[in-house]
Amino acid sequence: MAATRTDLANAIRALAMDAVQKANSGHPGAPMGMAEIGLALWGNNMRFNPQNPAWANRDRFVQSNGHGSMLQYALLHLTGYDVSMDDIKNFRQFHSKTPGHPEVHYTPGVETTTGPLGQGITNAVGFALAEKLLAAQFNKPGLDIVDHHTYVFLGDGCLMEGISHEACSLAGTWGLNKLIAFWDDNGISIDGHVEGWFTDDTPKRFESYGWHVIAGVDGHDVDALNAAIAAAKAQTSKPTLICCKTIIGKGSPNKAASHDCHGAPLGEAEIAATREAIGWPHAPFEIPADVYAGWDKKAAGAAAEAEWNSLFAKYAAQYPAEAAEFTRRMKGELPANWQDLVKTAVAEVNAKAETIATRKASQNAIQAFAPNLPEMLGGSADLTGSNLTNWKGSSSLKVENGQISGNHISYGVREFGMSHIMNGLVLHGGFRPFGGTFLMFCEYALNALRMAALMKTNNIFVYTHDSIGLGEDGPTHQPVEQLQTLRCIPNMNVWRPADTVESVVAWADAIEQRTTPSSLIFSRQNLTFQTRTEEQIANIKRGAYVLRDAAQPQVVLIATGSEVDVAVKAAEALAADGVAARVVSMPSTNVFDKQDAAYKASVLPAGVPRLAVEAATTDFWRKYVGLEGDVVGIDTFGESAPAPLLFKHFGFTAENVAARAKALVK
Amino acid sequence: MAATRTDLANAIRALAMDAVQKANSGHPGAPMGMAEIGLALWGNNMRFNPQNPAWANRDRFVQSNGHGSMLQYALLHLTGYDVSMDDIKNFRQFHSKTPGHPEVHYTPGVETTTGPLGQGITNAVGFALAEKLLAAQFNKPGLDIVDHHTYVFLGDGCLMEGISHEACSLAGTWGLNKLIAFWDDNGISIDGHVEGWFTDDTPKRFESYGWHVIAGVDGHDVDALNAAIAAAKAQTSKPTLICCKTIIGKGSPNKAASHDCHGAPLGEAEIAATREAIGWPHAPFEIPADVYAGWDKKAAGAAAEAEWNSLFAKYAAQYPAEAAEFTRRMKGELPANWQDLVKTAVAEVNAKAETIATRKASQNAIQAFAPNLPEMLGGSADLTGSNLTNWKGSSSLKVENGQISGNHISYGVREFGMSHIMNGLVLHGGFRPFGGTFLMFCEYALNALRMAALMKTNNIFVYTHDSIGLGEDGPTHQPVEQLQTLRCIPNMNVWRPADTVESVVAWADAIEQRTTPSSLIFSRQNLTFQTRTEEQIANIKRGAYVLRDAAQPQVVLIATGSEVDVAVKAAEALAADGVAARVVSMPSTNVFDKQDAAYKASVLPAGVPRLAVEAATTDFWRKYVGLEGDVVGIDTFGESAPAPLLFKHFGFTAENVAARAKALVK
Repeated sequence: MAATRTDLANAIRALAMDAVQKANSGHPGAPMGMAEIGLALWGNNMRFNPQNPAWANRDRFVQSNGHGSMLQYALLHLTGYDVSMDDIKNFRQFHSKTPGHPEVHYTPGVETTTGPLGQGITNAVGFALAEKLLAAQFNKPGLDIVDHHTYVFLGDGCLMEGISHEACSLAGTWGLNKLIAFWDDNGISIDGHVEGWFTDDTPKRFESYGWHVIAGVDGHDVDALNAAIAAAKAQTSKPTLICCKTIIGKGSPNKAASHDCHGAPLGEAEIAATREAIGWPHAPFEIPADVYAGWDKKAAGAAAEAEWNSLFAKYAAQYPAEAAEFTRRMKGELPANWQDLVKTAVAEVNAKAETIATRKASQNAIQAFAPNLPEMLGGSADLTGSNLTNWKGSSSLKVENGQISGNHISYGVREFGMSHIMNGLVLHGGFRPFGGTFLMFCEYALNALRMAALMKTNNIFVYTHDSIGLGEDGPTHQPVEQLQTLRCIPNMNVWRPADTVESVVAWADAIEQRTTPSSLIFSRQNLTFQTRTEEQIANIKRGAYVLRDAAQPQVVLIATGSEVDVAVKAAEALAADGVAARVVSMPSTNVFDKQDAAYKASVLPAGVPRLAVEAATTDFWRKYVGLEGDVVGIDTFGESAPAPLLFKHFGFTAENVAARAKALVK
Repeated sequence: MAATRTDLANAIRALAMDAVQKANSGHPGAPMGMAEIGLALWGNNMRFNPQNPAWANRDRFVQSNGHGSMLQYALLHLTGYDVSMDDIKNFRQFHSKTPGHPEVHYTPGVETTTGPLGQGITNAVGFALAEKLLAAQFNKPGLDIVDHHTYVFLGDGCLMEGISHEACSLAGTWGLNKLIAFWDDNGISIDGHVEGWFTDDTPKRFESYGWHVIAGVDGHDVDALNAAIAAAKAQTSKPTLICCKTIIGKGSPNKAASHDCHGAPLGEAEIAATREAIGWPHAPFEIPADVYAGWDKKAAGAAAEAEWNSLFAKYAAQYPAEAAEFTRRMKGELPANWQDLVKTAVAEVNAKAETIATRKASQNAIQAFAPNLPEMLGGSADLTGSNLTNWKGSSSLKVENGQISGNHISYGVREFGMSHIMNGLVLHGGFRPFGGTFLMFCEYALNALRMAALMKTNNIFVYTHDSIGLGEDGPTHQPVEQLQTLRCIPNMNVWRPADTVESVVAWADAIEQRTTPSSLIFSRQNLTFQTRTEEQIANIKRGAYVLRDAAQPQVVLIATGSEVDVAVKAAEALAADGVAARVVSMPSTNVFDKQDAAYKASVLPAGVPRLAVEAATTDFWRKYVGLEGDVVGIDTFGESAPAPLLFKHFGFTAENVAARAKALVK
């Protein structure tokens, strides 16, 4: 006898409450309340192959309310992914496939890491944008090789977070009709019934963004959910929000509809009562064969993928170049001529020897690479003309009559949304996004940068106006501590180039990364070109190198970005004064830290005192100069005034640096 | 002859374009486009006294689109504040009263610092909430001593930012009817005409938040604006958004209605053409006497304040205790018995000697202080039960039939909104807000923390779940680099107490601050009580002190928070092994850095090797241990697993710390 829908949904409830109980930690309420939604979507509508989570044209699924991770793990287990019952039993244990929140790369079938609220839906907007753009770029008449949906589960918390506004507004503007979100409208958040702090008319809000809203769906009625999904799929120009009225912890006789079941185990007694109430007589972690059979998607998934494979084979036969390019892009591989591109670009920039702002040098680097890399997808949070993220031949993203085009995105003033949409674009595959804002406003997006580093997305964040050098806009816009903040994110490469050559090398390094995001930091103002040998140029990509040396250096000046030229001029002054100073340019501390000990010692010899010079907080530099060295930096906020005056005021002059260096020489 | 409205508005246009031109930097577009809005509000409706910007019952004004600062400076100058024509001529110059963006404490009449978009409107929600709460607490029948409006100018950029969603949603829920916002709907942002990235139906969006929306107002028609303001003031239960259709840079014949006039000087030729077009024949920085007369609010302002002063005198006569309390709170002074409260609280906690989580110790500290400080206004971003920011006798903020009450706010899942609303509450005066979330999610709010430090608001940010010690929630929730990030914000005190005594001292220190915000960092898990002498207890407030000493220390172990007990146990193990180790508890590096050199040397003696122990990134600690010392820390992301296992895995054990310490001893 086939399992009933009730049985299928209850299997989720049982796995969730039992796994949370065994872990003695976790969130049973959302999985139990969304069991029927899970069944309608994963059981009846979503297209995926459990045996190949990497299938290019699978539907994407994002659980934006990531604390309800047991819902996703239950669905993966039941439908046939490589998530075993032992994995479920190891929920939230060390190095298990089932960590506390869903983490991409840990669990087959998990597309992105969620938990920090509001970011899942934002990621999903990136997935759906990637799909729409790839489809426009690759599909041919009758050969829609890119054609999938992106589904999101989200809760009240996601809707309260500001980032949901940024992302959902853009999804509406972009007409992402294949984005379908399910709002788990259970009226409960951690502080209790939401009436005291969440009174938005959410359907109206999403209509104001241009979404298709299906209001008032009973989230426990699978037929109603199936009908809503069908209506959503029929949409050709708008994303859909399905508002699902649910009962958190449904099935629990004493804790349902209360925040008591949100974030803690139900307890053995209540679990027993729940088993009784929902008619689930099976022991913990026991799923009857008919329930497994009812959930199993291995055969259907294999068939779906096989169908797509033959479509793709047909495509490849008719469009072999496009098929190869699609495959390359989805694999994230650089084109074969990449190394030549880099070599040529660096040589040309070096020959030009221009003294320009590094934001302009950055644009020149983009110009050198992007036309050869159609996966490059630029953008800016409403500062395109300041960040210089566009290039000759780039076109602005636009949607006309349902057709999307363009490779540079004006994200509007939405730094957090931009950054996490970029993460979604990378996770989908097919794109190398980069996005710009002023360095200060990396703070609006900081958790998305951390998520990039954690998820190993090789995004490129472009930050211009990198210091007091931006001048008159004043302390609200002048970064001081932000360089240090970025450098301490694990797995984040930070580059602050000193001139055009370092800028193009930094860009090449960022593009070559596979599992590490990069933050590229550029100046508003002109920076003096530095002359280098071929060996010095080759060493830039080691993160730090000797830019100017002396026979027996008595002091080492370490500098980055706009302060490198100050250090060079200080070294000249010191030389005139009989003091031998070495200048080390250190565009990337993170990359330098990864070099072997011998190279590091060759750049920073032991026993020679060191002075760091950077228009930023000083604490960070102690890791290179120690307690005996010195740092010329800024530990206060900046000021509104013309930049040259500020650099002088804060001591970034050759004279001051030389004097401070001299004080270190014994 | 009295100046016409046209003249009055054009005075703003002229000052804006001339000051930006002279500074050769700035944003003329918004001031020129909002000149009539400025006139309607400041000329006809707003209540303020230019000669006393500190008048307690003044209307508050926030220019959320802070880049248009010349609008505010022009209004301050013209209405009679102490902002002279020389100050206007010094726009954006070093240490002038007219910095690039409005900065509180720099310019008389500027209520808050704006520029980072979306934060001004959020601040304004804080101002309006402060007004409503103070009115409920202090007003008496016929004696409404608290009764003013909060006005905000905002642009498209503010509306795109996610924080506007968080703040405006709450303003609707709280029914802040005295909050009146003017949307400068000019259809232009920096990337150009906004249609490609901003297609929200903004009136509908604000209606979904429960706002009163006045759509379609001609932003250049002063009568229409006056009528809208009257309608807004008539509202008794909802905040109002007045949607003003404007032309950016209005008056400029060739640059109006384009982003060319947004962020750059118009240029001499275009300025001359504009003078011609608008009929403003006067030389730069020349304002005719009749225009000054038309703008002057000195007499009206003095009269308005005098009227309030007599009302307050009447109030003080009838309610002397309440009047004194109101005055104390608006001055931000602590009650006379404060030092006794602290002494008693510390002694009691020390006597109890409890081993509890420091988040619980934090709640105990709140319990000791808040009932005696009615200005304390707690809150949490939907984690009240986890952050433990509430206390016995606290009541949840609620609005019923237009009446507001409560002293603990459930802000919902809105960290950024909460933090910057808190800044607004402080800037208004009368409250000492504190708000909690998990330490990780300080990242969502980071720029508001920086703004607190920049604006010198003495906010208290409560961050619990401070490390891998939170366990199973995993890397998305486990802070690693966040302590360092917070410590490097200039003028931010960061405390990470090791036990109950350090927790109560940290709270007392935070409450005593006048111009410095504090971030208080607490554990989820229990931390061992440490026994201390009276002298040691007294030294806690110096940021670091010797907790356990040895006669001739061979190594100094520096630790914070949960790692202090690990260091103590390591020192015991070392002692058993014949190695003399000192343990320094350093709950606040920032506060310790401010101590005199002698004290610092007495805690960290020169020549003795140092080992820092903290479950966070290591780079920061080099400033204390140097290159020769060592750090037991974490430079990768955390993992999802039970906490005890994680501490062991990452090396936070007495054995490992002792071994690493031994390696340092020569």
